[in-house]
Amino acid sequence: MAGSRDSKAAEGSKEAEGSVVQQADLLCEAALTGERRALARLLTAVENRTPLAEAALRRLYPRAGHAQLIGVTGPPGAGKSTLVAALIAELRRAGRPVAVVAVDPSSPITGGAVLGDRVRMQAYAADADVFIRSMASRGHAGGLSSATSAAAAVFDAVGFDVVLIETVGTGQSEVEVAAAADTTIVVEAPEMGDEIQAIKAGLLEVADIVVVNKGDRPGAHRTAGQLHAMLADAPRDARPGRPAPKHPDVLVTTAATGEGVAELLAAIDRHRSAARGSDGESARLKRAEAQVWAVLVDRLHARVRALEGDEAELAALPDGGWAAAPAPAPAAGALLRSVAAHEIDPYTAADAILDRLVGDASGSGSARVR
Amino acid sequence: MAGSRDSKAAEGSKEAEGSVVQQADLLCEAALTGERRALARLLTAVENRTPLAEAALRRLYPRAGHAQLIGVTGPPGAGKSTLVAALIAELRRAGRPVAVVAVDPSSPITGGAVLGDRVRMQAYAADADVFIRSMASRGHAGGLSSATSAAAAVFDAVGFDVVLIETVGTGQSEVEVAAAADTTIVVEAPEMGDEIQAIKAGLLEVADIVVVNKGDRPGAHRTAGQLHAMLADAPRDARPGRPAPKHPDVLVTTAATGEGVAELLAAIDRHRSAARGSDGESARLKRAEAQVWAVLVDRLHARVRALEGDEAELAALPDGGWAAAPAPAPAAGALLRSVAAHEIDPYTAADAILDRLVGDASGSGSARVR
Repeated sequence: MAGSRDSKAAEGSKEAEGSVVQQADLLCEAALTGERRALARLLTAVENRTPLAEAALRRLYPRAGHAQLIGVTGPPGAGKSTLVAALIAELRRAGRPVAVVAVDPSSPITGGAVLGDRVRMQAYAADADVFIRSMASRGHAGGLSSATSAAAAVFDAVGFDVVLIETVGTGQSEVEVAAAADTTIVVEAPEMGDEIQAIKAGLLEVADIVVVNKGDRPGAHRTAGQLHAMLADAPRDARPGRPAPKHPDVLVTTAATGEGVAELLAAIDRHRSAARGSDGESARLKRAEAQVWAVLVDRLHARVRALEGDEAELAALPDGGWAAAPAPAPAAGALLRSVAAHEIDPYTAADAILDRLVGDASGSGSARVR
Repeated sequence: MAGSRDSKAAEGSKEAEGSVVQQADLLCEAALTGERRALARLLTAVENRTPLAEAALRRLYPRAGHAQLIGVTGPPGAGKSTLVAALIAELRRAGRPVAVVAVDPSSPITGGAVLGDRVRMQAYAADADVFIRSMASRGHAGGLSSATSAAAAVFDAVGFDVVLIETVGTGQSEVEVAAAADTTIVVEAPEMGDEIQAIKAGLLEVADIVVVNKGDRPGAHRTAGQLHAMLADAPRDARPGRPAPKHPDVLVTTAATGEGVAELLAAIDRHRSAARGSDGESARLKRAEAQVWAVLVDRLHARVRALEGDEAELAALPDGGWAAAPAPAPAAGALLRSVAAHEIDPYTAADAILDRLVGDASGSGSARVR
């Protein structure tokens, strides 16, 4: 990068008016040398999708692509956090640096951190090769998946060998986040309520490995047997529009004591070796697509906001706007208000905005239903 | 609509090759006269976002805007479904037609229906003024929120007075769906585990009314008191980037016996009257925006797919693609593969796709970090 020498010259004047790119360069350099505060600031920028994050990711992305991404998901109460802690301990015993991105289910709105998270963080405060980060699941379309992938790319670029992505497996976006990892572990507890059972059925389809945790409870091995039978019964072929059934391994762990965790890590590594082919490629493409789409949607948002800036009066639309495409297109804010008032429909509004954004009515016209 | 007379002439030849608009006209007419199978087909089209749905919504949207939309959300196990059933019973006693959109948490992947759902459906099979519909929460960016709003608009257009939107309040998108209703009810159970507590904190911020359900359990009234105290302590002013605190009512219900449900309905109606002003306006704008954005993203998806059609070789990008914007832009599929291989970053890829889609590099360039 041409700018990095210049930014080194600017070092020490952190508070000075530097361009975003210079700031990003400084932070990236510091993070690459292992400075944790710089890494934390980068992750915050990524989470908030600031211009700094864009500049940093443009720089760090080509250094990434080497880490092993492991998704850990499952219903609330299955013991995901305890299992993640046990996996960290096991990985550290093997001398492998490990980062965790914990997607915080409480945070669509509060931005708060999960209770146990800070506690776990503390246990590794002195270990430079462990970094645990909570990620709020707020943000607009495609945001969670792309923000998590971007955070993983940052960890990957600065040298973490393994990135664990912990999500609660109840919402669509959280499941997608976990499923975009190289290896997805679905954690279940021996006994679960009815509503949770329904969630489980969906979760199992993303599992590369199923773990029945709390293996010391009565019924754990019975649950594992039932899951194994259920998964063996799964159809060999994909249903239309569905991913191909994965026929995952079923393991039993007791994360609290560490029992079965070494075996789980071995299964993860086996899956990784086996998936270097097409399965792994598909996970990598999925991650790439989520990230590119998120940027596209951001760009489009920025353009619509710009349109709202030069707000114009809502043009009188012929026939209340229903009969024909409006010309000239009114400002986006006015269009949204018209949709909210049911004066025009969302398709008419979207096409008007697109025409205005893109300045090319023919392209959007061809996609329209006529 | 000019086409509707023609489509009447085509009636009886349902299987014949009619245009999508003609099919949609037929279904809309049938649904507007109360034909349930036509309504069900429209809802399926909306859920799958087919061209038929677009044609139908263009026609039905201006007839909607009158129904009362009530979001019911909360953690798994709080008794949302039972409360929804109790609300239906109460609304039917008042002679009000009611529709339910139940967002199914198991469905990101399976598309399956929640267990209790079909059972509840059966109880009202003979009642023409009740319609219960499960909605899968799969689908791409913005899909869940817009599909749910679109389904509500269909119910609204065909004359349902109340639309209940039931979601499990753990994922971001599910919470957003509920929060886009006119009145959002957050249901809690008296006793909850730690992880659920963390979810609750986030959920409470979207609540217009908080309900502690299972009121016959020990501790229900204590929980209600604690929630009331917690909510009364909430800051009067919004934190930056957060919605203004709502200071919701806290009620206790026992949905299984119907106790407290009439009071809940009264509170809902009070909230609706109070929120006819700015709060209600903001919910309506939020719904409109979600729907318009979903269409925009769909249009963009269609354009990218069209780009992938005329696939070209990945142009050799100078400096591995990092230094400058690529020109000419390669096909979208090749770009995604390059991002997956960490040869180029997501921003470079997104800008290349946008340039190609939009044919206007200057607009996207201005949004770039330089």
